[in-house]
Amino acid sequence: MKIIYEPLELQTYLKEQNKTIGYVPTMGALHEGHIELIKNARKANELVVVSIFVNPTQFLKGEDLDKYPRRDEADKKICELAGVDVVFFPSKENIYFEDEVKIEAPEVRGYVLEGATRPGHFSGVLRIVMKLLNIVNPTRAYFGKKDAQQLNLIQLMVKHYYMDVEIVPVDTVREADGLARSSRNIYLSTDERKEALKISASLYAASKMISKNILDVEEIKGEMLTILSPLEIGYVEIVNREFEPIKKAEIGNTVILVEVVVGKTRLLDNIWL
Amino acid sequence: MKIIYEPLELQTYLKEQNKTIGYVPTMGALHEGHIELIKNARKANELVVVSIFVNPTQFLKGEDLDKYPRRDEADKKICELAGVDVVFFPSKENIYFEDEVKIEAPEVRGYVLEGATRPGHFSGVLRIVMKLLNIVNPTRAYFGKKDAQQLNLIQLMVKHYYMDVEIVPVDTVREADGLARSSRNIYLSTDERKEALKISASLYAASKMISKNILDVEEIKGEMLTILSPLEIGYVEIVNREFEPIKKAEIGNTVILVEVVVGKTRLLDNIWL
Repeated sequence: MKIIYEPLELQTYLKEQNKTIGYVPTMGALHEGHIELIKNARKANELVVVSIFVNPTQFLKGEDLDKYPRRDEADKKICELAGVDVVFFPSKENIYFEDEVKIEAPEVRGYVLEGATRPGHFSGVLRIVMKLLNIVNPTRAYFGKKDAQQLNLIQLMVKHYYMDVEIVPVDTVREADGLARSSRNIYLSTDERKEALKISASLYAASKMISKNILDVEEIKGEMLTILSPLEIGYVEIVNREFEPIKKAEIGNTVILVEVVVGKTRLLDNIWL
Repeated sequence: MKIIYEPLELQTYLKEQNKTIGYVPTMGALHEGHIELIKNARKANELVVVSIFVNPTQFLKGEDLDKYPRRDEADKKICELAGVDVVFFPSKENIYFEDEVKIEAPEVRGYVLEGATRPGHFSGVLRIVMKLLNIVNPTRAYFGKKDAQQLNLIQLMVKHYYMDVEIVPVDTVREADGLARSSRNIYLSTDERKEALKISASLYAASKMISKNILDVEEIKGEMLTILSPLEIGYVEIVNREFEPIKKAEIGNTVILVEVVVGKTRLLDNIWL
């Protein structure tokens, strides 16, 4: 497994290989969710590239940039075991430059849901993803459905900017008890960990209601909020696959999203129906 | 010569050719300046692509978007004669989408000089250039030095976003009397045409002063303003190749830029020393 630090070195190396490339961009602290992305990349491509970069521009002031978990050595091991060909560790200095061109998330879609509680977050996400996709120039890039709105915005950017890459959405990986895997789960105390189970419980309840043909969005949200109580709610929303608000759930075209704060930890989850 | 209207059709066609591509993005109303870009592209690449798209996002409110000259048939003829392989005529509907990701010009460098008189102009330029470069994916893209700040910002964007293309600057083409070729020259009346000669005259005078070792920027600007009088001045600036203000001109690292309004027509010119 190769470790590369310089963007131009990686770009040149990958061009010379002239192979199909599966790419998994990460912020490190790799867990089962990332491994699932890597497995998908491994199956469909000749080369697998993973990048590890804690992207400062997607953290707002006061968020957990400084304490975001960093585990470079463990991450390298995980990549090696998962059959990754190249791990890319860019430095901030090679990614961000003084007074540079910026990417701005869509005015509406970038500032609802997660974008409403974290205004500007998606501009930072899209900015780093555009840079990384340009550096790696992969055949396919893999993103988790857990960050559903992020996935949707990246798909839009790729389409509207005619970026030559296939974005592959990958299902959320969960703990045995239902909690969605996240690098932030390590922040949770034992009690908080138990409380956090209300998130997946609320999503399962919603899914069950829909399967019983209870489709009214307000009714479903009401039930979810009862289950989530007394957690601090970021948002509970039900949207279609274009992330537009809907009044009635429709199987095959519905995403239910939850963001809550457990203790001091912001947790996301969602289910695609 | 092929004419292609659909971005995805062009993208697929060019990929299949698997050849070096020289690309000249234009807003049409082609003149000697564009032909010079095409000639440069023709010399160095197997395929030459010219796009013609009057980009609405780089015109501010009240600017000349609606009356910007459009001459599609004449432009096609000119391309054919110049040995172009593909002319790309995208429609607005295939380039801009509702609530899409935006590109924002650098906070400082995008809002000085031309960016100060036309705030937001360069965000529109960079947005269309990023889209077009992604669609065409050229080996080399050709831009005139006449739009010096635009050229500089595009070079920065390509570098900071690791876009895999070589940006080739091409010298300004002038009329016999010195006026820089521009699609906007056709707006000039006979009298205005004569007045406009003061622009190149001021640049030649500046160049002559520097060759005589008069390097003080304020002194040179003073002389230029005298020559340009009584034209309405947008700006007269002397910067280095990074477009930073300087106090003393230095041969090999100086750009002198002028923007004036002649009648109702905004004209740009510059000289690289």
